[in-house]
Amino acid sequence: MSVIDEPLRFDLRGLPNTGAPAKVTLVGAGPGDPDLLTVAAARALRRASLVLYDHLVSRDVLDLVPHDADRIYVGKESARHTLPQDDITALMIRMARSGKPVLRLKGGDPYVFGRGGEEAQALAEAGVPFEVIPGISAAQGAAACAGMPLTHRDHAASVVFATGHLRADGRGTGLDLDWDTLARPRQTVVIYMGVGTLPRLCAQLMMHGLAPHTPAAIVERATCADQRTLVGTVQTLPALADAHGVKPPALIIIGTVVSLHGSLSQHDKARTVAAGRGCVL
Amino acid sequence: MSVIDEPLRFDLRGLPNTGAPAKVTLVGAGPGDPDLLTVAAARALRRASLVLYDHLVSRDVLDLVPHDADRIYVGKESARHTLPQDDITALMIRMARSGKPVLRLKGGDPYVFGRGGEEAQALAEAGVPFEVIPGISAAQGAAACAGMPLTHRDHAASVVFATGHLRADGRGTGLDLDWDTLARPRQTVVIYMGVGTLPRLCAQLMMHGLAPHTPAAIVERATCADQRTLVGTVQTLPALADAHGVKPPALIIIGTVVSLHGSLSQHDKARTVAAGRGCVL
Repeated sequence: MSVIDEPLRFDLRGLPNTGAPAKVTLVGAGPGDPDLLTVAAARALRRASLVLYDHLVSRDVLDLVPHDADRIYVGKESARHTLPQDDITALMIRMARSGKPVLRLKGGDPYVFGRGGEEAQALAEAGVPFEVIPGISAAQGAAACAGMPLTHRDHAASVVFATGHLRADGRGTGLDLDWDTLARPRQTVVIYMGVGTLPRLCAQLMMHGLAPHTPAAIVERATCADQRTLVGTVQTLPALADAHGVKPPALIIIGTVVSLHGSLSQHDKARTVAAGRGCVL
Repeated sequence: MSVIDEPLRFDLRGLPNTGAPAKVTLVGAGPGDPDLLTVAAARALRRASLVLYDHLVSRDVLDLVPHDADRIYVGKESARHTLPQDDITALMIRMARSGKPVLRLKGGDPYVFGRGGEEAQALAEAGVPFEVIPGISAAQGAAACAGMPLTHRDHAASVVFATGHLRADGRGTGLDLDWDTLARPRQTVVIYMGVGTLPRLCAQLMMHGLAPHTPAAIVERATCADQRTLVGTVQTLPALADAHGVKPPALIIIGTVVSLHGSLSQHDKARTVAAGRGCVL
């Protein structure tokens, strides 16, 4: 197995341009626990010979790839992209055109954030055949493990997924969210990639009318062995996350479904605190 | 294998009440294609001895259950629930207390509509141990197959899942949705269980400011061999769905991501029309 952690050094000139491009499979790696891969994704991983993977893909999931396969890290970490998006796309296309089937592995679901749609468009435009295998998104993994149903007749008639990620592409640097919509009651709001912007996020939601006592949680490393859940309110969550040193990847869940955590959490507290999961209430 | 299609005749009196209840596993059956089950869900199905399943669970998924297992249909069809929710919950608890591990199989993800949260609460209150295995939700299956990414930098900064199902529980009969929120631009709106209310839904969205030419699609039997996708606008979709006799289960997707369907659809049109999938544009 070769792991190429510095993809810019990967020599593309050696790749021949064969006639018919091979297929690119955009695979959702799910939230981290390899048992939460789809059957189709697990099968694709076990057959892969060339994998391009992101920062949010867990080591346990990567371990399913055959030992003699090439694995290329093209990860994105907040505001520090290892490889610009255009280069990732160009690399994928170049490899497919050389006749090598590519497994493009993305955290969660390729079509829920993570720019899978843009990659699929680039492949379609380049005439490269592709397939998309959905994955369990982090919100679903966190909901199941932390005991916070995303919808519930008594709490939330709808659920919205948004991102707290700051744009780092020159097209603005602020949090460009539809605050009026997110501040509504009777829904569950899930914010991806919002650790760094949590104080601004909560302040904006309250400024736009969300009650300060609305339950809010942050789930760090959802579904992984070291998952950690912090539960507070929109008002208290930023200080709580700061005090406990929460780091990405983490998911923010806002709404009264968070109040069900106490009874529905899938962690036996005595056991999971010992395992480092710690349920801070 | 026994399939009990009339659960009200199932004789609960024969079930002993053992001391420690067995575990109930709430399993997401995904959108239909058994390859889109999670690895954990597929494993749980293969080991099950007693399965309580819903209307939206596909036959292919059910076929993974061992032949000698008991399968009880407690399905819900719009406005005609085979078994009232309270009876389903009571049945689950009674069975678990008799010492039989129960696999509760729900279409999609147990915590995205489908009342998994309520069932989990009832189990927690009854002291029955339970586990939740998430599933690919219909929106994710439809997005991947029909080529409509749920989020996309150029189209939708967020995605919202809501339900078009009319309440049939005596607590109101209207479509109780937050129209102002759903009518916003720059998001993808996914409506579950909205076939019957599609004309009202589209009319309300336009009345609340959504542009009539906003792309909108209905995906019938997402991810199944006979999946069908109809693409129009918020204005034209109701007539299109009516003309083509769309039936539940079907998912409505609204937003400019729908315009990507032409290039990102995973159906080879020549092949899939022959297979009955038909991509109506």
